[in-house]
Amino acid sequence: MQERVLIKKCLELVGQEVLLKGWVSNVRDHGGLAFIELRDWSGTIQVVINDPTVKLGREWVVAVTGIVQARDQKLINKNTQTGAIEIVSKSIEVINKSEVPPFDTDTDGRLLDENTRLKYRYIDLRRPRLQNIMRLRHKYMLAVRNWMDQAGFTEVTTPLLTSSSPEGARDFIIPSRIHKGKFYVLPQAPQQFKQMLMVAGVDRYFQIAPCARDEDPRADRHYGVFYQIDVEISFPTRDEIFATAENLIKETYKTVAPQKEIITFPFPRISYAESMDSYGIDKPDLRFELKLQDLGFLKGKTEFNIFNQAETLKCVVVKSHEFTRAQIGELEDFAKSKGAKGLAYTKVTESGFETGIAKFITANFVELKEKLNLQNGDTLFFSADSYEKACKVLGQVRSKLGDILNLKDQNKLAFAWICDFPFFETNEETGKLDFGHNPFSMPIGGKEAFDNPDPLKILSNQYDLALNGYEILSGSIRNHEPETMVKAFEMVGYGRDEVLKRFGGMYTAFHYGAPPHGGFAIGIDRYFMVLIDEPNIRDVYAFPLNSNGVDVLMNAPSELRPEQLKEAGINLRND
Amino acid sequence: MQERVLIKKCLELVGQEVLLKGWVSNVRDHGGLAFIELRDWSGTIQVVINDPTVKLGREWVVAVTGIVQARDQKLINKNTQTGAIEIVSKSIEVINKSEVPPFDTDTDGRLLDENTRLKYRYIDLRRPRLQNIMRLRHKYMLAVRNWMDQAGFTEVTTPLLTSSSPEGARDFIIPSRIHKGKFYVLPQAPQQFKQMLMVAGVDRYFQIAPCARDEDPRADRHYGVFYQIDVEISFPTRDEIFATAENLIKETYKTVAPQKEIITFPFPRISYAESMDSYGIDKPDLRFELKLQDLGFLKGKTEFNIFNQAETLKCVVVKSHEFTRAQIGELEDFAKSKGAKGLAYTKVTESGFETGIAKFITANFVELKEKLNLQNGDTLFFSADSYEKACKVLGQVRSKLGDILNLKDQNKLAFAWICDFPFFETNEETGKLDFGHNPFSMPIGGKEAFDNPDPLKILSNQYDLALNGYEILSGSIRNHEPETMVKAFEMVGYGRDEVLKRFGGMYTAFHYGAPPHGGFAIGIDRYFMVLIDEPNIRDVYAFPLNSNGVDVLMNAPSELRPEQLKEAGINLRND
Repeated sequence: MQERVLIKKCLELVGQEVLLKGWVSNVRDHGGLAFIELRDWSGTIQVVINDPTVKLGREWVVAVTGIVQARDQKLINKNTQTGAIEIVSKSIEVINKSEVPPFDTDTDGRLLDENTRLKYRYIDLRRPRLQNIMRLRHKYMLAVRNWMDQAGFTEVTTPLLTSSSPEGARDFIIPSRIHKGKFYVLPQAPQQFKQMLMVAGVDRYFQIAPCARDEDPRADRHYGVFYQIDVEISFPTRDEIFATAENLIKETYKTVAPQKEIITFPFPRISYAESMDSYGIDKPDLRFELKLQDLGFLKGKTEFNIFNQAETLKCVVVKSHEFTRAQIGELEDFAKSKGAKGLAYTKVTESGFETGIAKFITANFVELKEKLNLQNGDTLFFSADSYEKACKVLGQVRSKLGDILNLKDQNKLAFAWICDFPFFETNEETGKLDFGHNPFSMPIGGKEAFDNPDPLKILSNQYDLALNGYEILSGSIRNHEPETMVKAFEMVGYGRDEVLKRFGGMYTAFHYGAPPHGGFAIGIDRYFMVLIDEPNIRDVYAFPLNSNGVDVLMNAPSELRPEQLKEAGINLRND
Repeated sequence: MQERVLIKKCLELVGQEVLLKGWVSNVRDHGGLAFIELRDWSGTIQVVINDPTVKLGREWVVAVTGIVQARDQKLINKNTQTGAIEIVSKSIEVINKSEVPPFDTDTDGRLLDENTRLKYRYIDLRRPRLQNIMRLRHKYMLAVRNWMDQAGFTEVTTPLLTSSSPEGARDFIIPSRIHKGKFYVLPQAPQQFKQMLMVAGVDRYFQIAPCARDEDPRADRHYGVFYQIDVEISFPTRDEIFATAENLIKETYKTVAPQKEIITFPFPRISYAESMDSYGIDKPDLRFELKLQDLGFLKGKTEFNIFNQAETLKCVVVKSHEFTRAQIGELEDFAKSKGAKGLAYTKVTESGFETGIAKFITANFVELKEKLNLQNGDTLFFSADSYEKACKVLGQVRSKLGDILNLKDQNKLAFAWICDFPFFETNEETGKLDFGHNPFSMPIGGKEAFDNPDPLKILSNQYDLALNGYEILSGSIRNHEPETMVKAFEMVGYGRDEVLKRFGGMYTAFHYGAPPHGGFAIGIDRYFMVLIDEPNIRDVYAFPLNSNGVDVLMNAPSELRPEQLKEAGINLRND
């Protein structure tokens, strides 16, 4: 029996007879002479059929026996991998027919209704675009695992059936049949388990771990379960943790995106305060500069009341670019949509400011020109407001400028560490003190830091990694002292009893020889989307839930039989 | 700052000063001169402390600065990796103290109460035995992934939140907050998803996949979630599938068990019927022969009524072994415990049979001697009963003989394919026809096979892989024809509507160009346990549920807050 070969293998088999098996992705019938595009996992190829009795339909499964033949020079199709060859069919066997498929598979599918695509996902996944995503995701995960292994890390699988964890999102709950009235929950993250592994002496742990959070569906979030590269190290310095993430990223991303380049390595480190000050956000896009500049020195000196009175006045300077009226309008609308009252701007000419708010700051031209090193053709965009709002709005204008000026080069990867986050923040709803990030982080300065009379000034040894405007990693040096842990929770109003009840396992563990430890988790979906330039988060999953949390292919969630509810010890409620 | 080194690295650093960080696994204080055993992830080492002011306790976390020194020839401890060296301490810093641990960590822990071990799992996991299991499991999974990758397979992650699947065990159910009254379930296996991936053209899929089944807890089963190496291939021959599994196993097991040897490669293939006939079981231990031999030719010829009347008479011949009275007694008791009325046996001497049932078969000596090629000193064990029971009981006696005669060499791996299982069986409770194994398998002979007037004779293209008496793999060539699928379910009493309701996604998928496909899944836990000779299934997990389905460390399952139930749209029921 002749052995089947994959289509891409034909490139090495010109002149020989081959047996191919795959799908008919389209048919062009010229009456007697037909051309089909045959597709398998490795690629597509043109098959020439000189037999009017052969009738084939789209997406039929066929076995083609034929000769691999070089195409005429002028017939070479440079757009496909196998465009220089074709198969001249000797015989075709129909392995399985297909009903007329609900959509084409030779487009990228982006314009189709998503629910239709997901209902027929097994056809949708035949698109070369989606097959490539599956292939790259596999290759990337494998590269990560091999890198972690050679760096001395051990992958440990932690439980899927566990108890409520402190990540703070809603849990997915699972009634226990054996222990009626009690529930398992799916893990929101392996946080507590990985810290226990440190107490257990595992030293260098990692896991590509599923995390389940019942957050409200959003178009840009995959509902339900996502994956993270979870890493933890014992006896670490922060430098060692940073170097681990940096090298992991540097030495694996080319598996997926060989054409991309990291702009700065090792990754720059920016404090949270500096990031807010210079970029108005804690995940700045550093593919371009356009820093927010403080104009505090102008206070009271302009003829513009808003500038004189605002807590903070900042500007962004765009060098030598001629903005169109439409662009300025777009920017103004954008700033308003982000909560600003407008967007003050002006332009530098030989003789002074021109257009926009020029007339209010004519007197300040010389000082501004000198301090900001302004040149003819520069444009200034201003924000005057409370410190927080001025930074935030102008930061978003900065990002929009990046789009308009085409500064977001897809082939550049700008990573940056954002460090020293505030340990606490004021909860906007309650006005009370709340955790800013991970409650299990170590405060900078240790337990004594909590004696600071202004708790909002206490910093956490917490860090994020920003990439091109996304947060793709979060981590911290953990707190490994039980009394510091109790104190942290007391600061936000938990009693010792409550801490022991909720996190008793970890509290107790910290009494039996806990080593200092720290780590991070990389959100795979977001990071992978940036690497492959994929805007649709659902397309990085083979079988995603739709944006309403429904699997339209498998019909999940669905109603259960009454005896299933009974066994689980639950009733549906009517309220 | 001096860099920490791992203990095993000290072997290369004799004479040099090192900084070690780890746990004090025990202390011997000789008044002034103390010896501690220091443990980190890489090993243990003796530290000599010549400073009476240093007081340390078990499981304290310490940093030791000292000189690596070769031990005197006569003080070398050959039982530990670092037994030829020790650290002469210059200074010791206590990083964290420990309360007195509830148990030792330098034993294997097997004699301790399991719940106590699990409650303090973070201490329990410090045992070198358990750390080694974590390390080996990681190394094994990685070896599997790399092998699959180089063999052209793509790992695709399938959903954790899905709908009820047909594996037939109970589901873990998850109420949907957004779609009240409906439920997700955890996957029992990725069976339907992997078949859809074949329809999607993935060609060669694998996944190390979690499978969740709410089966009643049992001591030798991990409650809740287990893992399998899940594999599926399009356009396969059965030989190709077998070769994939065989090569995967052969080229990865030495990562974990380099001292072990595969007895026969490629693995022998035995039909289900032959396996039952020769070994009385569908997962025979082939590290030893001792086949069940049929004595049908004796029917009506002996002076033993039971032998003459039984549907089936079989025996096992043990060559030249002198059984003690105690061994014979043990075997008799064992046979009775398996449902036999007794265990007939006799022994071959120069002059005829002796002891046991000798007197009833004296007349048959010559025929038996010739047909079974008996020799002096052989012992025969008989089973006379219905065919099924005779095979089953004698098969278990055969296994027990393997124990008694020490034939189960832990360093031998005897794999065998068991093929051609019956498609249907008679359900013992209802007396009705039921699926013998996977309902999605292809019957041998295709859809026409279902026309067989005796459905119990219909065979399935289903196969298992037996290893040393365990079933470690199961798979089949799948059915990819929708009407054959409907027919299979109709045979056991499902209507077409029911099939479409339960498996509509797959039924529809099979209409849109489904390729022939097949595959298998390896149960990692059981297979790994055999490879590492670990009898306790919970110890191959870092954080197992106990044998009653409870996580005593994290307190799962546990009660929820009333608002959590309300959000999930459920009540606890009181019946």
